[in-house]
Amino acid sequence: MNKEYSVVGKNIVKLDSIEKATGAATFTCDFKLPNMLYGKVLRSPHPHARIVSIDTSKAEALPGVKAVATYKNTSRVLFNTSATATFTIPPLVPVVDQYIFDSVVRYVGDEVAAVAAVSKRIAEEALKLIEVEYEVLEPVYDPLEAMKEGAPILHSHTESKNVPGEKIHIEMGDLDRGFAEADRVYEHTFKLPVQKQAQLETQGAVAKIGVDGSITVWSTTQTPHPTKRIIGSIFNVPYSKVRVLNPPYIGGGFGVRIGLSAKAEPIAVALALLSKQPVKVVYDRKEDFIASDTRHGGYVTVKTGVKNDGTFTARKLEGILNGGAYCSWSTEAPGVLGAMGLSLYYCPNQMYDGHSVYTNTTPAGAMRGFGNPQAMFAIDSQMDIIAEDLNIDPLEIRRKNIMRVGQPWVLPYPCLSSGLEECMDKGAATIGWDRRGKLNAGNSKKRRGIGMGIGTHVSNAWPFCGDYSNAYVTIQQDGSVHLASGIPDMGTGNTTALKQMVAETLGVEFDNVRITYGDTESTPFEIGSHASRTCYASGTAVVAAANDARDKVLAFAAKTLGTAKEDLDILDAAICSSSNPEMKMALSDAALKAHEQGQQFIGVGSIIPQNAPPYLAQFAEVEVDLETGKVKVVKLVGANDVGKAINPLVVEGQLEGGLAMGIGYTLTEEIKYDSKGRQLNTSFEKYVLPTAMDITELQTIIVEANDPTGPFGAKGVGETGLVATAPAIANAVYDAIGIRFFEIPLTEERVYRAIKKEGIE
Amino acid sequence: MNKEYSVVGKNIVKLDSIEKATGAATFTCDFKLPNMLYGKVLRSPHPHARIVSIDTSKAEALPGVKAVATYKNTSRVLFNTSATATFTIPPLVPVVDQYIFDSVVRYVGDEVAAVAAVSKRIAEEALKLIEVEYEVLEPVYDPLEAMKEGAPILHSHTESKNVPGEKIHIEMGDLDRGFAEADRVYEHTFKLPVQKQAQLETQGAVAKIGVDGSITVWSTTQTPHPTKRIIGSIFNVPYSKVRVLNPPYIGGGFGVRIGLSAKAEPIAVALALLSKQPVKVVYDRKEDFIASDTRHGGYVTVKTGVKNDGTFTARKLEGILNGGAYCSWSTEAPGVLGAMGLSLYYCPNQMYDGHSVYTNTTPAGAMRGFGNPQAMFAIDSQMDIIAEDLNIDPLEIRRKNIMRVGQPWVLPYPCLSSGLEECMDKGAATIGWDRRGKLNAGNSKKRRGIGMGIGTHVSNAWPFCGDYSNAYVTIQQDGSVHLASGIPDMGTGNTTALKQMVAETLGVEFDNVRITYGDTESTPFEIGSHASRTCYASGTAVVAAANDARDKVLAFAAKTLGTAKEDLDILDAAICSSSNPEMKMALSDAALKAHEQGQQFIGVGSIIPQNAPPYLAQFAEVEVDLETGKVKVVKLVGANDVGKAINPLVVEGQLEGGLAMGIGYTLTEEIKYDSKGRQLNTSFEKYVLPTAMDITELQTIIVEANDPTGPFGAKGVGETGLVATAPAIANAVYDAIGIRFFEIPLTEERVYRAIKKEGIE
Repeated sequence: MNKEYSVVGKNIVKLDSIEKATGAATFTCDFKLPNMLYGKVLRSPHPHARIVSIDTSKAEALPGVKAVATYKNTSRVLFNTSATATFTIPPLVPVVDQYIFDSVVRYVGDEVAAVAAVSKRIAEEALKLIEVEYEVLEPVYDPLEAMKEGAPILHSHTESKNVPGEKIHIEMGDLDRGFAEADRVYEHTFKLPVQKQAQLETQGAVAKIGVDGSITVWSTTQTPHPTKRIIGSIFNVPYSKVRVLNPPYIGGGFGVRIGLSAKAEPIAVALALLSKQPVKVVYDRKEDFIASDTRHGGYVTVKTGVKNDGTFTARKLEGILNGGAYCSWSTEAPGVLGAMGLSLYYCPNQMYDGHSVYTNTTPAGAMRGFGNPQAMFAIDSQMDIIAEDLNIDPLEIRRKNIMRVGQPWVLPYPCLSSGLEECMDKGAATIGWDRRGKLNAGNSKKRRGIGMGIGTHVSNAWPFCGDYSNAYVTIQQDGSVHLASGIPDMGTGNTTALKQMVAETLGVEFDNVRITYGDTESTPFEIGSHASRTCYASGTAVVAAANDARDKVLAFAAKTLGTAKEDLDILDAAICSSSNPEMKMALSDAALKAHEQGQQFIGVGSIIPQNAPPYLAQFAEVEVDLETGKVKVVKLVGANDVGKAINPLVVEGQLEGGLAMGIGYTLTEEIKYDSKGRQLNTSFEKYVLPTAMDITELQTIIVEANDPTGPFGAKGVGETGLVATAPAIANAVYDAIGIRFFEIPLTEERVYRAIKKEGIE
Repeated sequence: MNKEYSVVGKNIVKLDSIEKATGAATFTCDFKLPNMLYGKVLRSPHPHARIVSIDTSKAEALPGVKAVATYKNTSRVLFNTSATATFTIPPLVPVVDQYIFDSVVRYVGDEVAAVAAVSKRIAEEALKLIEVEYEVLEPVYDPLEAMKEGAPILHSHTESKNVPGEKIHIEMGDLDRGFAEADRVYEHTFKLPVQKQAQLETQGAVAKIGVDGSITVWSTTQTPHPTKRIIGSIFNVPYSKVRVLNPPYIGGGFGVRIGLSAKAEPIAVALALLSKQPVKVVYDRKEDFIASDTRHGGYVTVKTGVKNDGTFTARKLEGILNGGAYCSWSTEAPGVLGAMGLSLYYCPNQMYDGHSVYTNTTPAGAMRGFGNPQAMFAIDSQMDIIAEDLNIDPLEIRRKNIMRVGQPWVLPYPCLSSGLEECMDKGAATIGWDRRGKLNAGNSKKRRGIGMGIGTHVSNAWPFCGDYSNAYVTIQQDGSVHLASGIPDMGTGNTTALKQMVAETLGVEFDNVRITYGDTESTPFEIGSHASRTCYASGTAVVAAANDARDKVLAFAAKTLGTAKEDLDILDAAICSSSNPEMKMALSDAALKAHEQGQQFIGVGSIIPQNAPPYLAQFAEVEVDLETGKVKVVKLVGANDVGKAINPLVVEGQLEGGLAMGIGYTLTEEIKYDSKGRQLNTSFEKYVLPTAMDITELQTIIVEANDPTGPFGAKGVGETGLVATAPAIANAVYDAIGIRFFEIPLTEERVYRAIKKEGIE
């Protein structure tokens, strides 16, 4: 029973689409300043080594070279490339474990030095002239190995076992009693791969130093305001003298630049300070693969106590994630893994323990889903094992255990809305759930199967870290509206959605609202784009700002028209009285009259952080080729409780993108290393992303269980698309060939070997 | 008895000085965009003509030409190049009398067509290929001629006599009774020249059209927000879709671009719309002279009734100004002439009548002083005539009649402060007033003389037109401060002064405040820089915003510290309790704690328009060469009541610049025309600006009569420097050679002829 809206809920074409389609859009990599230099980075060839000596004199002598930066002439302030240092809520303490350059290198690709020169070619030449002597140290790659006694220690600040920061522990009820009450107990360990965000635009930044020492950085960051804080801290400059902006587009993010864009910003700034000229640093694709955060791989163990009727009595979840060489989001990701892992199903007795481990590999950070796809693969794979063992339909055992509105969970905010059951029912109907188990009559070498997975996620980063937004809304003298929000536009459509919310709140046409974004100079503090939050959390701030402005418009109009403010509303850009249909005033008239009296209607909006659970159910139909091991997704249905689809077209775009990324996570994508710690797949040629050919049919279903805390009822949709894809596909593969996989991706090689091992024909 | 301030009142070096000294500053003329075209304008060779036909086909066919604009393919919305259309308070109605291009041309230089091409050279070539057939119409140049029956009519909308808009009439007391009470009545008419602003950077704009039809303009405007409104109106685009910004510097203004930068903005936008590429239009110096506003020349008549003791009983003032071909500020300038002319001295019975007249000359608009230097030359020249006639010292007769705090005047705001008498006393002492009349013992061919003139002005444009400001102040998480104000930086030092006010209000160091300015996208509505208002009026908004943020800081700190908000103050970046010296919290701690709790301290400031009179007394010592007629200013003393000097160095810069411009106005500067309506002096070679060689010794004296309505007591200082220079010098020339001049400039030719005529040897 949604209210009838004029702008919200409408399929308005994304603001950036025409610019991108015509090639007119400007990204950091396109951005140029007068006298700008090009920076290139020398990277470690060793997974673990100490720099014994470094001689940059030949590089400096090369004509056209303007600066060479090493650990000797750059900031010695420790930082974290992620925004954790700017978000963390005490008593938690963020881990800061990186310098721009250090005298120890901890993974192949770690920063050793950088050169700024008048051309990229000269900068690259100069890199070859830098002479570095290394003392090679013993490396460790696997998190379980790195936790063992006697393993090489990467950072002196870790107490033991290479664990960065605090371990996560979550508890609810009485676990022992829960397991005691169970009829059966299941325990399985799942292994997760390292996935790469593979965003189209690589990490990049352009830095310029003002004559007053102020720093301006144009970059690919997803979080301009927090990035401003990080830059200010690293270079010891008042935050007000730092400006961070997107120029204005970002070629995707998926979490890879929440905070810094790897080290593009600080390297560009360091070189700009040394050379006294603007400097541009853009990672090439190989650098983006080896020296820019990945998703966390690792191990998830689920132990579940169940009654014979399928009811849960106890659940113990454990996550050990590979954090790579530096911490980035490695303290938060295991937290989300556990929190989400324990809140999809209701279970009175639960416990989670998890943490990351340092290894001599590329740092793992944030990636769409943020620990949650790892949890869901484990939990919802096990769910099908239990269902089969208890001989209950997988759909029904889920129905029995799913979290319902008002039930207690481990999260500090209540579950106020859920469209999960509707998602399950609609998804099941769409995939043809009743066909499950009945697809392989005959003797085909291609076996079909159907499987499902469900999931939940967040609409905001709070309470996992600090998370708030502010916005300005001003009414122009012709009644048109200007909105200023510090969010970036990564291509998700969030700027379009926020404009819709403001237009709806103020009763004006969509096209009469302009949004300024992605610039710390024009906007108040706003965390940025991550945690599926911009629609839900930034949206709340934006609606609050619009309501503040609306309030001022109505107060002015009430005075002018001689009525009570409460009697007035804005409809179709006109202020109307509910008591007297004759009493009317165009918004443009009110704005102009106010102007003539020396007033502009200015609204400021801030939020009190909340959160809301978006829910989803995914259903996959797959075809497994017994002769090659190839898993083909024939159809993938994603039914999503989005709260309220502010712009269904944009929501579908997010959900479909998520499904595609989930297919890659499940079937093909994995960063691998050779025995010397070098990444094996460092290009789009070698790192296999699913293409249109791999994705036969995606079908998204939008379910709207309005959440009372969301703007117009909306919840987050940025990440949910992929959190349950892996279990849905893996369960479908099981349905097709009867093999349970405890590790993804389900590459042809892995599936083929399993088929051979099991002797399926 | 000023309060002791930490930042306000300090000589902090202007923010722009280093950038300008090193050549790093960016102006519109430096600004470049990818794919940018260059626009050039075809201008009328006739002072008055109708376009019979215009053929652009050959120009369009020239390779490299991307668009040709004429009245046939551009906006037909009437506008006013000045910001009057965006400021005027009803019931006054602004005069809108220009199109971008029209089928009638009204002065030599009027816009006929424009070309956008890939290079300036090609654009210029193309102009020569445009074929225009004119029907030449009769021109008129002098305002008195233009008012006569049968004179050519320039605009059909004028009721009669070529007068644009409403005539100004101001009245107070009973004029007839006043004159009847007088012992003597004096009446003189003075003729004023057309002066040019001669700002270093010519008019310029770069326009870019977004794929959504939004318009972005980088330009030299002094008023980004009002200019946004004008552009929106001309091109029928919602104001929110128009962005106007300075890039960020402006090479001077002096009033020449309050509103549009002549027509640089609309021509650039029109060409960008036609060519679908960004377009840059920068006037060359000749265009800037012939097709960009000037100061109003014209006639001022003063009739004064005086008692034998020197007391005024009645004054009748009349101003007839040459408005040129289009209205621009021609309805406001005569108003300020009258209002200022009647409010320097107290007189119970006063009347003013004034207006502008259209003529076929370059439009007159705003220039530093805005009608007031014209009034002061007339009034304070006559003052010396009266003083001599009544045998009263010129200083004493002024002392007897000057306006004093609380006395009634014609203005709708009260006179709450005056340092005029202190200015007169200090100035007189500095020049050595007692030497007056005693300098020419002997028989030298060089005669010396001393003279004085006094004046007043405004600190804001209200109530002459609408005038208000808003500002944002945000506290960053390290306690540093960001200020956003829509003012431009024309080089006056206003950005430095506003930063000082914010630093003082929030108790932080100057260097910890950053200001964003000159961009409609990052700031709420702000009229801009004109009417000596940015320190006084924008300053008030900025201090209000800082106080709003301060209030929120103190409320948060009070809650955190467990005390009352009123008990707290911010000193040296720390929140301190007045009751408990132990109770203390760094501002940075409060900002960070608030951040951790999801709050940023955001202040919004708006103003209730006020005004305050800055006062000044100027004293000149001159040397007149009887053999050449050359008048040399030996010394010029300007004593100014500035209310409170927020930054004395900046104030002195404004005052000295004003004095220099006043010397040019008095001695050398005048735009002249030949018999065919063509300007004769269209370059810095031919238009004689005073140089350092012409300005022997300037001495400024700062007097601080704090005004209760000004921020920290400040009043406007942008224009006062020159309002009394002409009478001071003219009176000194009289003291030197006994000749009274009723017309300026006192060029060598004019003075030599007068000397010859009077037979002085």
